[in-house]
Amino acid sequence: MRRGILFILSGPSGSGKGTVLSRLFSKHPEIKYSVSMTTREPRPGEMHGINYYFVSREDFEKRINNGELLEYATFDGNYYGTPKKEIESFLERGIDVILEIEVKGAMQVLERAKDAVAIMITPPDIQTLEKWLRGRGTNSEESINERLTTAKEEIRCLPKYHYSVINEESKQDECAELIYSIMQAEHHKTVHTSKIMSKFE
Amino acid sequence: MRRGILFILSGPSGSGKGTVLSRLFSKHPEIKYSVSMTTREPRPGEMHGINYYFVSREDFEKRINNGELLEYATFDGNYYGTPKKEIESFLERGIDVILEIEVKGAMQVLERAKDAVAIMITPPDIQTLEKWLRGRGTNSEESINERLTTAKEEIRCLPKYHYSVINEESKQDECAELIYSIMQAEHHKTVHTSKIMSKFE
Repeated sequence: MRRGILFILSGPSGSGKGTVLSRLFSKHPEIKYSVSMTTREPRPGEMHGINYYFVSREDFEKRINNGELLEYATFDGNYYGTPKKEIESFLERGIDVILEIEVKGAMQVLERAKDAVAIMITPPDIQTLEKWLRGRGTNSEESINERLTTAKEEIRCLPKYHYSVINEESKQDECAELIYSIMQAEHHKTVHTSKIMSKFE
Repeated sequence: MRRGILFILSGPSGSGKGTVLSRLFSKHPEIKYSVSMTTREPRPGEMHGINYYFVSREDFEKRINNGELLEYATFDGNYYGTPKKEIESFLERGIDVILEIEVKGAMQVLERAKDAVAIMITPPDIQTLEKWLRGRGTNSEESINERLTTAKEEIRCLPKYHYSVINEESKQDECAELIYSIMQAEHHKTVHTSKIMSKFE
C-alpha cells in the first residue's frame, strides 16, 4: 500500500489559510489534520484532541526528553509542539497528514522529516494582507503592524518551501483544489511509484 | 508573466496514452501539443502541421546541422524529430507544451531541456498491456510480442522520469486529470513562484 505524505502548510497570519484548509478538509475528508500539543489552559469551547492535546508541563517536558516531538517552541510561557506518533501512524496507513505550522516550526520539521513537503499560502501582495487584517476589525493598529512585519520575514523563507500558492479573495476553493493537486502530484513522483516496475518483469 | 513548461509524455505502445491525451486537450484546450517533423511521406488523411511537419531529407538535415531540433532519430529509413522553435515560442508566451515521445527521444530531450518535466503513462501491469494489445485485433502475434518486449525495456527507464501515472480501463478521465494536476503543481513549485517575494517588500 502507498505510504501517506506529511504536508507542511504555512502562511502569514491573516492569509486566510484557515478558510482554505476547511474547504480542503470538507471536500477531501480522507486527509488528516495534525493536532498540536500545548501546556496552555484550554479556552472556552476548545476540546482536547480536536483543537489541541492539552497536557501538563511535566508531561510535555518528558515528551521532549523522549524525542516524541517533531518540533516544539515556547510562546507566552507555554510549550507548543507536534507529537510524532499520531502522524507516523497515519502515514503508515497510507493517510496524508497536513501540519499547519508557522515558519520557524516548519523549518524544524523539514530538518527532521526529510520526506515532508512544504507549501506556503500567501495573499497576492502585502497591500492585500493589510486590507484583510484591517477588514477583520478586531486587530489593533499595533497588532496589524506586527503581523505585517512578521509576514515580510516569513515570506523570505519561501525558497525553503517546495510549493507556494496564492490565496485570492473569493477564490478559496480554487486555492484548496490547487493544494489537493499538489498532494496528488507528489504521490505520483517516480520516487514513490517505482514499484510499478515490478509489474512489468 | 509566467513561462510555460515543457512536459514530456511517454508510455509503452498500447498504454492508451492517445486517448488520455485527447481527453486532456479537449478539457484544457489552452495546452499545446508539440508537432513532430518527419521525412516520411504523409499517409492518406495526414495533414502538414497537424500530424507532422512533412519536410524533405535535405531540409531535415539542414535543420540538424543548424541545431534546430531538440531530438531526432531515424526509423525505417526516415528521420523523425522535434523542432525547437515552436516549443520555445509557446513557452515564452506562458503556454504549456506536451511532447509525446518514445523513451529514447525523451532521454535526449531531458539532456537538452533541463527544465522539462517527464511523465510516464503505464497500464497497471504487463498482463493488462497484453490484453489491450490483443483487444485491438489488428496486431500480429509477432508485433504483440515485440511491443511487450519494448514495454519492459521502456519501463526500466522510469526512474529517469519525474512522475508516473497508471492508466486504468475506463478511467482515462481520471488519468487525464491527474496529468493536469501534475502540470498545475509544477507551476507552483517555489522555483517558479519566488517572484511573489517581491510583493512583500
